[in-house]
Amino acid sequence: MLKPVLEKVILGIDPGTNIMGYGVLKVVGTKASVVAMGVIDLRKAGDVYMKLGRIFERVTGIIDSFLPDELAIEAPFFGKNVQSMLKLGRAQGVAMAAAIHHSVPITEYAPLKIKMAITGNGSASKEQVAAMLQRILDISQDDMPRFMDATDALAAAYCHYLQMGRPQSDAVAPKDWKSYVSVNPDKISKRCPRL
Amino acid sequence: MLKPVLEKVILGIDPGTNIMGYGVLKVVGTKASVVAMGVIDLRKAGDVYMKLGRIFERVTGIIDSFLPDELAIEAPFFGKNVQSMLKLGRAQGVAMAAAIHHSVPITEYAPLKIKMAITGNGSASKEQVAAMLQRILDISQDDMPRFMDATDALAAAYCHYLQMGRPQSDAVAPKDWKSYVSVNPDKISKRCPRL
Repeated sequence: MLKPVLEKVILGIDPGTNIMGYGVLKVVGTKASVVAMGVIDLRKAGDVYMKLGRIFERVTGIIDSFLPDELAIEAPFFGKNVQSMLKLGRAQGVAMAAAIHHSVPITEYAPLKIKMAITGNGSASKEQVAAMLQRILDISQDDMPRFMDATDALAAAYCHYLQMGRPQSDAVAPKDWKSYVSVNPDKISKRCPRL
Repeated sequence: MLKPVLEKVILGIDPGTNIMGYGVLKVVGTKASVVAMGVIDLRKAGDVYMKLGRIFERVTGIIDSFLPDELAIEAPFFGKNVQSMLKLGRAQGVAMAAAIHHSVPITEYAPLKIKMAITGNGSASKEQVAAMLQRILDISQDDMPRFMDATDALAAAYCHYLQMGRPQSDAVAPKDWKSYVSVNPDKISKRCPRL
C-alpha cells in the first residue's frame, strides 16, 4: 500500500529596493530541493511606482508559476534611517500584497534568525549562508546565482521549512513524544531556535 | 452645439496603520464635488497581515466602485522612528499596489503641501483643513465624517485637483497666455505651490 507523501512549496523572498531575491523550495516527504531561485532587478525599472509595479507583477508571476503554499520573507525590523525603512516597508508591503491577493500565508524571519537556522551562527556572512545552502540542498556550482539576494531568499524558505517542522511522509500519528522522536530524529535541531 | 465636458475622478488616500482615510472627488468641467469619503478601520482587523490584506481588499473595492482616473496619496517622508516608518511604508505599499494593479497613476503629496494647498497655511490643523473643505466643496454638516482621516484623504484629492490644473470645459485651446489667463482666472492660485 502506498503511503501518502506530503508536498509543500515554500517561496522565500529577500525584499530590497534595488534587488529583490526569491527562492522556491519544494518539500516532498522529508526531502527539500530547490525548484528555482533568482532576482528581480529593480535598478532600471524606472521611477518608484514603476519599481513597486515591477515587484507586484513579478511576485504575482512567481506565485502563478510555482503555486507556493507559504511565503517566508526576510524582514529586518530596524534599519539605518527612517527614509530607507519607509522605502523598504513599501517594497515589503507590495510583495506581501501579491501573496495576500493569492491567499498565500506569510511568515517573517529576522535576518539573524535565518543565519542562525542555516549556519548556526547569527552573524554569518552571505557567502557562508550560500555555501551552507549549496551543501545542504546539493546545488551544483553552475546553478549557484550571481546575486546573494537569491540565496538569502532561499535561506528564508529553508529556515521556514526547518521552523515549521518537516512534513511527515507517514500519516500515522505517533503515540507519544518518545516514539515521535525515535521516528523523527531529524526534527531535533539546534540550528533553528523558535522565534 | 454641445461643448465636450471633461470628467475626472480623483481618489485621495491618507494611509495609516490603524485608520486609513479615503475621499473620492469628481471633477466635471471646472466643478469639483465629493462623491464619497470614509475610513478603513484596521484596529480590529487582526494581525499585521490581515490588516494589510484588509487595505488591499478595501482599496481594490473602492477603485472598482468609483473607477478613479488618478490616486493622490498623502505621504510623510519622515517620521518619529524607523519602526513606525516601516509599518507606514507597508501600509502605503499595499495601497499603492492596489492602484498599480488597476493601472491607476499615483501622485504623492507631503502633508505640509496639502495643508498649504487647502488653507494657505502649511501648519494648519486637521480641523482647519476639514472646515475649509466643507466650505469649498459645500459639504453639509451631516455629511462631514467622524474621522479626520477621511477629510485628510479628501484634502489630498483636492490638492491634486488644484495641482494638476482643472480640466477645461472649453476644448478650444487659447492662443496665448494672456487670453488663457483671461478665460481661466481660477487657475491663478497662490494656494498650491508646485512641489
